[in-house]
Amino acid sequence: MSTKIRIHVSYDGTDFGGWQKQKSGKPTIQGELQKVLSQLFNQFVKVTGSGRTDAGVHAIHQVAHFHAPRNIENYNLLRALNSLTPSGIAVHNIFEAPEDFHARASAMAKKYFYFLLTSETPSALRARYTYWQPHSFDLEKLMETSKYLVGEHDFQSFQTRGTDLATTVRKVTKAEWTRVDTHLLRFEIEGSGFLKQMVRNIVGSLLEIERRVLPAANMKEILESYDRKAAYGTAPPHGLYLARVFYPKNLDSQCRKI
Amino acid sequence: MSTKIRIHVSYDGTDFGGWQKQKSGKPTIQGELQKVLSQLFNQFVKVTGSGRTDAGVHAIHQVAHFHAPRNIENYNLLRALNSLTPSGIAVHNIFEAPEDFHARASAMAKKYFYFLLTSETPSALRARYTYWQPHSFDLEKLMETSKYLVGEHDFQSFQTRGTDLATTVRKVTKAEWTRVDTHLLRFEIEGSGFLKQMVRNIVGSLLEIERRVLPAANMKEILESYDRKAAYGTAPPHGLYLARVFYPKNLDSQCRKI
Repeated sequence: MSTKIRIHVSYDGTDFGGWQKQKSGKPTIQGELQKVLSQLFNQFVKVTGSGRTDAGVHAIHQVAHFHAPRNIENYNLLRALNSLTPSGIAVHNIFEAPEDFHARASAMAKKYFYFLLTSETPSALRARYTYWQPHSFDLEKLMETSKYLVGEHDFQSFQTRGTDLATTVRKVTKAEWTRVDTHLLRFEIEGSGFLKQMVRNIVGSLLEIERRVLPAANMKEILESYDRKAAYGTAPPHGLYLARVFYPKNLDSQCRKI
Repeated sequence: MSTKIRIHVSYDGTDFGGWQKQKSGKPTIQGELQKVLSQLFNQFVKVTGSGRTDAGVHAIHQVAHFHAPRNIENYNLLRALNSLTPSGIAVHNIFEAPEDFHARASAMAKKYFYFLLTSETPSALRARYTYWQPHSFDLEKLMETSKYLVGEHDFQSFQTRGTDLATTVRKVTKAEWTRVDTHLLRFEIEGSGFLKQMVRNIVGSLLEIERRVLPAANMKEILESYDRKAAYGTAPPHGLYLARVFYPKNLDSQCRKI
């Protein structure tokens, strides 16, 4: 009998080709986890994440599940995963999950962070983890512009094509900016789901509206044009972090930490 | 006429073979700076740092000097250096320095940080920047043990051989531990000068004394044995940061920011 396992993972996306296993190219997070688990259990183990993250995108908290083909009490899974995966991947928690838990299908909401470094000179130690733009952004303006995102909208203007979806309507429940320190700004966005590159496309437009000193309501116009071409460029992946995946309380409470 | 230039540099040491230019192997910080400056001025430019840092060691604030063979006002040196060096190297300030300023010979004192991550699981996003030891270190004990380092001592026990020196006596003016957050500890050490791998050798012994529950005064015994073999192992380079280089006030005040 196999056991459904839920894991909480963080990663430094810099050296990976994203979450999703690829036939060729850079190693991926899913690929590395599957490789280690398949070695460990001596048979192929498929790992399912809450969703993909693009190449270069980081995760503070990504959730995934898999079926352990054997009694996992014979393995120190947490230690094995952390010692066998590359140092850019870390596993923080492992749970025995109920059979109906599904990392993607059960996810109710997600939170992302985007970090912007505004210092005059670049940072050697934050180069991998922040998007550097030597410009003193007006935080009030960024906050005002972001308010237009909150609510249920058709986010077509912020979707990079390539996926067939039944609907491009999503609900954003939070879109806020915080000054972390003098030169570091953080954008926090939470919602029911996100389209392909939606957060990076939104950040690209928020920054451009501020930089061109356009009215905050320009965001509303972009949203209501339902046209990707009405929005501005895509912010680079290395400022973005998957920060949290939310599941229904009843599923969370049925997960047993091991 | 050439102008003496002083620069303040930071770097992520992970992907470099240390400060000092080598004939082969990984790129080095000095090598990368020299390459860019030599290209820019179309002739070889030698860069002199305040001292070497080992492969993998980071710098928040390293100081170096060079002679600019031409009038630097025709160059945007800060921008050129930052755009032409790899993203793991950043130049923060450039000064016209008096002719008698010498990045190494004029340095009066240095400060280093060592970061220790004590969380139960490793960190994907801090793996390059902290030494991970899943053990709850007793901060009081680390502080008590560190006090024996302060003062003028012969630090032979903490010197990795390989350099011929007139004396191994150095003065340490500060050796303190701070809890940065729940699982992150920072060691700060300041002194007149440091022997080869001295900070990493000191940290190795401080951690081992705590872990083996030895008396803090064991540090005094190690110091007074004047024997490298009396001390414990060398802590890894990736927790270490050159944090500041100090120069006489009169030299600092003669440097003109450009």
